[in-house]
Amino acid sequence: MSAISDVEWMAATARLAARAYPMCRPNPGVAALLVKDDRVIARGVTQAGGRPHAEAEALASVGGLGEGGAKGATLYVTLEPCAHQSTRGPSCTDLVIAAAPKRLVIGQTDPDKRTNGEGIKRIKAAGIAVSVLDDDASRVALKGFLARETLGRPYVTLKLATSLDGCIALADGSSQWITGDMARAHVHAHRARCDAILVGGATWRDDKPRLDVRLPGLEERSPARILLTRGIAPDGVRVINKPQQITALEDAQTLYIEGGALAAASFLELDLVDELHLYRAPIIIGAGKAALGDIGLGNLADAHGRWNLAEMQPLGSDTFTSYVRVR
Amino acid sequence: MSAISDVEWMAATARLAARAYPMCRPNPGVAALLVKDDRVIARGVTQAGGRPHAEAEALASVGGLGEGGAKGATLYVTLEPCAHQSTRGPSCTDLVIAAAPKRLVIGQTDPDKRTNGEGIKRIKAAGIAVSVLDDDASRVALKGFLARETLGRPYVTLKLATSLDGCIALADGSSQWITGDMARAHVHAHRARCDAILVGGATWRDDKPRLDVRLPGLEERSPARILLTRGIAPDGVRVINKPQQITALEDAQTLYIEGGALAAASFLELDLVDELHLYRAPIIIGAGKAALGDIGLGNLADAHGRWNLAEMQPLGSDTFTSYVRVR
Repeated sequence: MSAISDVEWMAATARLAARAYPMCRPNPGVAALLVKDDRVIARGVTQAGGRPHAEAEALASVGGLGEGGAKGATLYVTLEPCAHQSTRGPSCTDLVIAAAPKRLVIGQTDPDKRTNGEGIKRIKAAGIAVSVLDDDASRVALKGFLARETLGRPYVTLKLATSLDGCIALADGSSQWITGDMARAHVHAHRARCDAILVGGATWRDDKPRLDVRLPGLEERSPARILLTRGIAPDGVRVINKPQQITALEDAQTLYIEGGALAAASFLELDLVDELHLYRAPIIIGAGKAALGDIGLGNLADAHGRWNLAEMQPLGSDTFTSYVRVR
Repeated sequence: MSAISDVEWMAATARLAARAYPMCRPNPGVAALLVKDDRVIARGVTQAGGRPHAEAEALASVGGLGEGGAKGATLYVTLEPCAHQSTRGPSCTDLVIAAAPKRLVIGQTDPDKRTNGEGIKRIKAAGIAVSVLDDDASRVALKGFLARETLGRPYVTLKLATSLDGCIALADGSSQWITGDMARAHVHAHRARCDAILVGGATWRDDKPRLDVRLPGLEERSPARILLTRGIAPDGVRVINKPQQITALEDAQTLYIEGGALAAASFLELDLVDELHLYRAPIIIGAGKAALGDIGLGNLADAHGRWNLAEMQPLGSDTFTSYVRVR
């Protein structure tokens, strides 16, 4: 009996998957761990541009293609192995069958209709035991891919950076970046992991944000820039007129909304926000400009039961708190 | 050489002092640890009603009154031993001299003019080494007493319980207690440690708050109730007309302000708030009623550098964050 449960190994695998982003674009960032006698003997994540896949990486590193390196081992992979041939290489289903590990443990089935259970079926038919966990860690690791496949839109994270009393500016509108260096770096690191970043027309006009990644070594990781406006598109920026049009952002598995108060409220009103990132500076404004416009809430009771606390930590003199939408 | 520093021992002593509140009223809650060869051999806190004092408790438990139990030990005490005789017993200065520990380590000197260095002087003259740390832990443990003695007013904690976007009600004013059971219990436990609790006139009229402690076993610990209003005092409630009049609340070392938005803002505007307690429920209101009215802030730059993050923790599905005023 293993001392470490499948769910625990999958949590470790899911954590590894974070390394795949954002180089894996436009593929999902998948990770695989090959475990024998409670020790990791190989690991892999989706490589730059989407190939090789995570399983191929892990199995290749033990000479797993029929040479026996994976025999007796358990292969953990956050997403069901792909079942379709590609001009870019054999399917991972074929690779797993050839490597013949004792067990395959999958975090999430692949909703892509070219796979969607087909990989599991063929691997089982080859005599390899298969378990599907549908655990939290792999679901979170694949949140952008799963939103795209199941909701038909990117996974949406809304950032609010406010004073302790929830304001973003004085009542007369005068504002500045109110959080400190660590919070700013945290925001830029999140930008680097997102496919697209959006602001509303007023914020674009008033703040002239660059919306790029300004962290040493990550300058090339800036996401696509999207503007929510009824106006025309500036150079290098894509425009949508309504929040619902994020379904058309086909290349984006993850969308990061950075303001302003009206754009943020419009996404919340349509229940198009999956995650909240709250940065709070240690200042009090009092009767200032609120971080959010009207979200159409008619009854306070309706506001409850929608958000789960996910993370809280200090960032220098600021704090970061995140919440995930209960769905 | 001791493995544990004086500052570390004082932090442990300060932590013990929390046990003295609120039974020690109206005296400060002081704690004492007697340490020999890096082990605690006795401890004491201010007893109910203010006597015996912490040092007397600790020394009595080792038969310290001249019988040699404290010989060779170090006595840590958060506040300078009192130098004045009282009808309720000898001064702690006399007790310490009689017990003759090797060293006395004091957190804070006593600003009470009957002591104020006199205790230290006499104990040194008796041949006992004395150190004064003026460390953070003992200062925090005595914050109410020190505010009363040095600022001439109670130490003021302001509570704000809001949605994630800093609102306390819908725009039309409809509200309810928005935080959950753990946050409510946390608030009641804080009430039990305070000497007085204050709300503004509008909150008193609209919410009819009981402002008492409703925790099993602590019902008798409800603080005095204060109302900030230009109106008349209801039964059992004391009225002040202006925030500045908290100086007249002589029995209060600690004052807890629970709202509403205008009362809170009036104390902030006058810089009469020493600590902020922020409770946040996992709900979003959007364009609701803000937690704070105008605090007279004319320039965003003036809002910075005033508050230090002290604590952050989840409370069930809510969060608690506290800040201390930098002075």
